[in-house]
Amino acid sequence: MTRPTQIRLAQRPVGAADASTWATTHDAGRDPETGEIRLKVTHISLDPAMRGWINAGRSYVPPVGIGDVMRAIGVGEVTATASDRFKVGEIVMGLTGVQTDATVSAKDFNKIEPSLAPPSTFLGGLGMPGMTAYFGLLDVGKPEAGQTVVVSAAAGAVGAVVGQIAKIKGCRVVGLAGGPDKCRYVVEELGFDACIDYRSGSLHEQLKAACPDRIDIYFDNVGGEILDVCLGLLAQKARVVICGAISQYNATEGMTGPANYMSLLVNRARMEGFVVFDYQKQFLGAIMEMAGWMMAGQIKFREHVVEGIESFPEAFGMLFAGTNFGKLVIKV
Amino acid sequence: MTRPTQIRLAQRPVGAADASTWATTHDAGRDPETGEIRLKVTHISLDPAMRGWINAGRSYVPPVGIGDVMRAIGVGEVTATASDRFKVGEIVMGLTGVQTDATVSAKDFNKIEPSLAPPSTFLGGLGMPGMTAYFGLLDVGKPEAGQTVVVSAAAGAVGAVVGQIAKIKGCRVVGLAGGPDKCRYVVEELGFDACIDYRSGSLHEQLKAACPDRIDIYFDNVGGEILDVCLGLLAQKARVVICGAISQYNATEGMTGPANYMSLLVNRARMEGFVVFDYQKQFLGAIMEMAGWMMAGQIKFREHVVEGIESFPEAFGMLFAGTNFGKLVIKV
Repeated sequence: MTRPTQIRLAQRPVGAADASTWATTHDAGRDPETGEIRLKVTHISLDPAMRGWINAGRSYVPPVGIGDVMRAIGVGEVTATASDRFKVGEIVMGLTGVQTDATVSAKDFNKIEPSLAPPSTFLGGLGMPGMTAYFGLLDVGKPEAGQTVVVSAAAGAVGAVVGQIAKIKGCRVVGLAGGPDKCRYVVEELGFDACIDYRSGSLHEQLKAACPDRIDIYFDNVGGEILDVCLGLLAQKARVVICGAISQYNATEGMTGPANYMSLLVNRARMEGFVVFDYQKQFLGAIMEMAGWMMAGQIKFREHVVEGIESFPEAFGMLFAGTNFGKLVIKV
Repeated sequence: MTRPTQIRLAQRPVGAADASTWATTHDAGRDPETGEIRLKVTHISLDPAMRGWINAGRSYVPPVGIGDVMRAIGVGEVTATASDRFKVGEIVMGLTGVQTDATVSAKDFNKIEPSLAPPSTFLGGLGMPGMTAYFGLLDVGKPEAGQTVVVSAAAGAVGAVVGQIAKIKGCRVVGLAGGPDKCRYVVEELGFDACIDYRSGSLHEQLKAACPDRIDIYFDNVGGEILDVCLGLLAQKARVVICGAISQYNATEGMTGPANYMSLLVNRARMEGFVVFDYQKQFLGAIMEMAGWMMAGQIKFREHVVEGIESFPEAFGMLFAGTNFGKLVIKV
């Protein structure tokens, strides 16, 4: 049994987070009061959106306060309960925070069914990244069979699922990823029609060649220059799904906007953002459908597991350096 | 009777067009062949979109060729006909080009009804600017009563109509215009709820104060910094209608993209472009509805008339300097 550990926000980073961003504490924690449960956290999810949570200023959720335990989605086992909702020994998921033990409100947590998939899958393919891919592609992108779908960060947690769902829907799917290993994985393991290494050669020329009918849906996880190149290759009535902008999250001199946005006019196209939490009432159905696709081998999902909660600061940096390969999870 | 005159594209401008962009010729023209008509052009429309037509490169229409008569929408009287479609003396509109006399294909022209409105109105409120405002606001923006609509270039041909239709639909309407005269006109004559002079003071602060419930629809005619400020003030599920980007059309070092585009994600909002020609089959109904609103005094439309076809190069420059006040029309 490790002693209780919390990773807290020590100060807001300017640019990339580093060791000085975080502080480690070892508070004992407290027993649950009425309506609460106590958890032993087993898995913690690391997601690009977390970078936004530590900025000050308006977003879709309030920022993490200085001194607070870093916000994170996690899975844990109930060790004590003061709620009718859960029994000791059950596995639950929700906003555990980056800590080994958590006392939380039972109503904000959901039980997970270990017979459906291993617990960490509920942080990945059946968790926020899977739900983000599912609703972003299907509800915002609205793919139709025969259309061309381009996905950035195609080897990443969200991009990999977006492309595989698009294949299920009968689309031609082109991924963008960094480096030959990821590109090979995207085509050979995930079954995309093509994958372009954005770090090598002219992205515009390669993408143009891979998309002879131009791009009907671009699912954007990265922003920056890649977004601009894709805007320049849109088909008529195209949809650009704005899911993230990881190339821009550490920017210190303000974001760079997409200079090619007037392509939206010329091509009668739309660019639209979404927040996955808005679909919460539809999660259960989506999880069941995704679990079915996984069981049938139509959706594969790769995890990159890092051991130990002390690894959090380093693992967080991997998200933005692109050095993780698959959904990043800490095994506590 | 003036001698036949044509304004031709002499060379593609880098940045703003100037005298060297254009060449004047005095070709006699020719009689109509089967299916054609000969016109005496009476009114020529000047629109910001024309700047795009003289760039090389992909757009929603092919670029005007070097040496060709400059493309323009105009109104003219039929002086000779080799088509069943029109009789001599009828008033028609279509792509006349910037010239005093034109021999054109009858099937590309439509008769206008002088009893409905003066001929130049078919280049303005009942013409492309009116149709652009009508379909851009109603079909792309989808206003609902009680929502807040912000319109840039609010004293311009498109913006003025957008705001007035939004008022008819029960919205709160805030205009953006350059200078106190235009702002006064927008509020006092056109009936907008407020109008902000973007040249004076902090646009962000003024707009925030004028839109206490933030912005549900931003109808963008200008791009650049104003688009960014509006993106920063979007309400949930907002729509940004991309109609034009007049602040950027003369840019020589590439367009500036909207740095605040991630506001689309945070606010689950969309940014969408459109091309008015796609709605051609619905024009007649829209013209009749607009004519009704004009007759009822619910839509006012101001023209800025310049005399003589030789004024074209100078008048073209006014569009981008913002020195016209109302829809710019050349009376030939």
